[in-house]
Amino acid sequence: MPSTSSSPTSDTTTDLRHVLRIDDFSDATWDALRRSAVVHRRDETRGAGTAAGRSLGLVFMNPSLRTRTSMEGAAAHLGAHHTTLVPGDGSWGLEWEEGAVMDGDAAEHVKEAIGVLSRYHDALGVRVFASGTNYAADTQDALIRTIADHATVPVVNLESAWAHPCQGLSDAALLTERLGDDLTGKSVVLSWAPHPKPLPMAVPNTALRTAARCGMDVTVARPETHALDPDLMAEAQSVADAQGGSVTTSTDQDAAAEDADVVYAKSWGGPLMYEDPTQEAEARAAHADWRITEALMARTRDGAFMHCLPVRRNVVADDAVLDGPHAAHLDQAEYRLHAQKALLQHVWGLH
Amino acid sequence: MPSTSSSPTSDTTTDLRHVLRIDDFSDATWDALRRSAVVHRRDETRGAGTAAGRSLGLVFMNPSLRTRTSMEGAAAHLGAHHTTLVPGDGSWGLEWEEGAVMDGDAAEHVKEAIGVLSRYHDALGVRVFASGTNYAADTQDALIRTIADHATVPVVNLESAWAHPCQGLSDAALLTERLGDDLTGKSVVLSWAPHPKPLPMAVPNTALRTAARCGMDVTVARPETHALDPDLMAEAQSVADAQGGSVTTSTDQDAAAEDADVVYAKSWGGPLMYEDPTQEAEARAAHADWRITEALMARTRDGAFMHCLPVRRNVVADDAVLDGPHAAHLDQAEYRLHAQKALLQHVWGLH
Amino acid sequence: MPSTSSSPTSDTTTDLRHVLRIDDFSDATWDALRRSAVVHRRDETRGAGTAAGRSLGLVFMNPSLRTRTSMEGAAAHLGAHHTTLVPGDGSWGLEWEEGAVMDGDAAEHVKEAIGVLSRYHDALGVRVFASGTNYAADTQDALIRTIADHATVPVVNLESAWAHPCQGLSDAALLTERLGDDLTGKSVVLSWAPHPKPLPMAVPNTALRTAARCGMDVTVARPETHALDPDLMAEAQSVADAQGGSVTTSTDQDAAAEDADVVYAKSWGGPLMYEDPTQEAEARAAHADWRITEALMARTRDGAFMHCLPVRRNVVADDAVLDGPHAAHLDQAEYRLHAQKALLQHVWGLH
Repeated sequence: MPSTSSSPTSDTTTDLRHVLRIDDFSDATWDALRRSAVVHRRDETRGAGTAAGRSLGLVFMNPSLRTRTSMEGAAAHLGAHHTTLVPGDGSWGLEWEEGAVMDGDAAEHVKEAIGVLSRYHDALGVRVFASGTNYAADTQDALIRTIADHATVPVVNLESAWAHPCQGLSDAALLTERLGDDLTGKSVVLSWAPHPKPLPMAVPNTALRTAARCGMDVTVARPETHALDPDLMAEAQSVADAQGGSVTTSTDQDAAAEDADVVYAKSWGGPLMYEDPTQEAEARAAHADWRITEALMARTRDGAFMHCLPVRRNVVADDAVLDGPHAAHLDQAEYRLHAQKALLQHVWGLH
Repeated sequence: MPSTSSSPTSDTTTDLRHVLRIDDFSDATWDALRRSAVVHRRDETRGAGTAAGRSLGLVFMNPSLRTRTSMEGAAAHLGAHHTTLVPGDGSWGLEWEEGAVMDGDAAEHVKEAIGVLSRYHDALGVRVFASGTNYAADTQDALIRTIADHATVPVVNLESAWAHPCQGLSDAALLTERLGDDLTGKSVVLSWAPHPKPLPMAVPNTALRTAARCGMDVTVARPETHALDPDLMAEAQSVADAQGGSVTTSTDQDAAAEDADVVYAKSWGGPLMYEDPTQEAEARAAHADWRITEALMARTRDGAFMHCLPVRRNVVADDAVLDGPHAAHLDQAEYRLHAQKALLQHVWGLH
Repeated sequence: MPSTSSSPTSDTTTDLRHVLRIDDFSDATWDALRRSAVVHRRDETRGAGTAAGRSLGLVFMNPSLRTRTSMEGAAAHLGAHHTTLVPGDGSWGLEWEEGAVMDGDAAEHVKEAIGVLSRYHDALGVRVFASGTNYAADTQDALIRTIADHATVPVVNLESAWAHPCQGLSDAALLTERLGDDLTGKSVVLSWAPHPKPLPMAVPNTALRTAARCGMDVTVARPETHALDPDLMAEAQSVADAQGGSVTTSTDQDAAAEDADVVYAKSWGGPLMYEDPTQEAEARAAHADWRITEALMARTRDGAFMHCLPVRRNVVADDAVLDGPHAAHLDQAEYRLHAQKALLQHVWGLH
């Protein structure tokens, strides 16, 4: 794993508008972008032509349906060209280590791959998931930071080990549309949910940071065994304090849902999946009753059901929720398209 | 398998211009589209710009060369954007069952996949082949109908279990160009041909319906063992009657070809491949002499040789046919591009 | 393997501007194209719109990162549409043999595949690597010539068994930018380098031809065991003579690098990998010290380090070279984009 600094890759240090996590946005930019996404959704011109002639390079080191099609669509709506690469699928594996003697499987170093793609494109979107085994590297988002270090154009994180800023901005835009521009005092339950696999933390981390950034009152509801990373919880608390919101935790899903404006469902493996995968699997299997039901949604203040998708029906959430009146997950997915148009315009300095 | 109604998914019932089979077109639309395809082939502007700003989402659950590149090209010629997804290849498997508890391999339900793609695109093109094992589901075209049920934008069938309307429209356009606008009384032999594999019926079903729809005199020539579905035969007969044509069958390929205007070659497994695969394989192997030869073509009225491609040379048809004066299969393939431009304009109400 | 003529597929014989190797360009075209590439690199408009409405079909029978994304980008910059196909990946295998009875795995003959794609596109770019086992066929570039034979639009070679003209033109453009329009008398060492695999010869063959075509003094430095094809060496010698340059060989890498303007590093298996793979592997392993080092670069006249990429760090060349002041490999890769814009404009008669 390459050594990485813990300093944020922000506008000021590199002059490149990398978007690696939502913290890379200033408060003013954050508010401008969530509002811009709402405007884009209503824009009948679809933003046509505002980025004509620009080129976006997309690199997916992991599978994607929504992110790929929405990012390709966002580029197209703005009049930009895109190229989509899937290393290992019609391409080849990459070497990440600094100083590696490349006599193994990897045919190309990330330095050259990203260096070259930076010559062909005006921005790069990159998906590179968590290792799932190296907790320190994952919490530092070592891989996406390595990519940003070698890029000479802005890098947009399309989901990394620890963050998914495109999802975060989309979620903020949906919340803005549904609950109003001032989200202070609105309540969201980030509820852990059952799943057959131990899932990574990029989305729950980002949902938590997003709600905190919006000044909302966030309750992280999860079994005792499935806490989120304590440093991330402390950071989110600090952000929420500054924005007039709050972060609390609960192991009582029913109580947490009471009068909530939003139930944001997501499964995650948590730190325990790194420390003791067997114990994590047992604990996860023991909490199948954390599935989101209409009975739970009935406790809310006519709350919105959110999920980043893909969602496993009748495991994570019931058909009755997904097909019922609280469901906001398709609107949420649609906002990916619009939020990413706002984001590309930001990255390219077009507004 | 989801329950499906047998009612057509037509304009009138859903207000969406789904194209699941050629029967979804009214007579007037059918004639307008085949003529429009002929005009498109001659159009030096290539239709540029008439669908500018629109977006087409393509989903291939099975391999494709011609359909993919011709559909991407059709969209591009019209100025529309496209995104192409291949689930399972850089994406993930889908769940189809209503009410399924999704604790297995499938990570996403078709409801969400199609629901989301409907938000990103103005039409969806979907390829999903026959199961090859569930005859009832395949004859009902259950999967493509499920997709149409969950879509909120028009769905274009890029070959399903039972139908291939893009191929049908392209074939009708080629026939119109070669034999004239009034196809009544023209004769076509839909001839079964040998093949190392038991092939699905979407193309022969559609070729039969297309010729019947055009009022042609169709002879389905095939070994005793390889009849097409009897309900489909009856439907085609009824359509042909209404249009001034006819549908007959023959087990004598030579006699059928006599004075024909067209020999449309295609292999298929037929209902027997569902009932008794071993018997079907033996019967198929016993009829290698149904290969299309120049001697057969010499019996025709200078007939055109048609095949949807890919074609196995010297198994389905001889080199002498494919490289000879009767060959129309490349023109036929080219018409995919032009017919699909006409079809997209129809789906989007652009003419 | 299809029979192939040894005559070049040039403008004059077919009226199609195929680009199968750099020898397909006349002297005047070659000079115009390398200059045009340099202009394209500086062009802030990116060539937008000069090929609007045209369509480029890309077929990759082997993996690609740079070629694919740079060719897609070149098309996009010119306003052209592209479709990218990867047979075998979401498509199917092809039959190449004339007269084959296609009862095996291949579902489509190259005649139909290329015949159809010629109907959909205004040019085809095709990558099809060496067999690595049939030396005669590889030296004749039998596969790419078969494709050109069946195409009715220009074919651009995106790396075949024996040639990589896009790379050659890009390299010539970089050399022109760095060393001046008149390259006569400039010296380049084409240095063999270590590698864990026996690599094909398309790139070293083309680098040699390119330098000879530019009238440079080329030294092919390589171990005794890893000579290039003798016929190709003789051809390059003849071209160099005509252009005022020279071709020599050396088994002393240090001596060859003395006062060189360029070190072009590349590994290759050579004819020996066809004749005796075991002996080739042993010889290759014995020459790990041919790795390009800063000590070697220090012998040059502040020479440029070139490599076509992907490059294995610390096997082919040291980090100190790739990250140091002599490195030109990223500029070289960038020129792919610009050279291919010039090349597409040539193929389409746009300048």
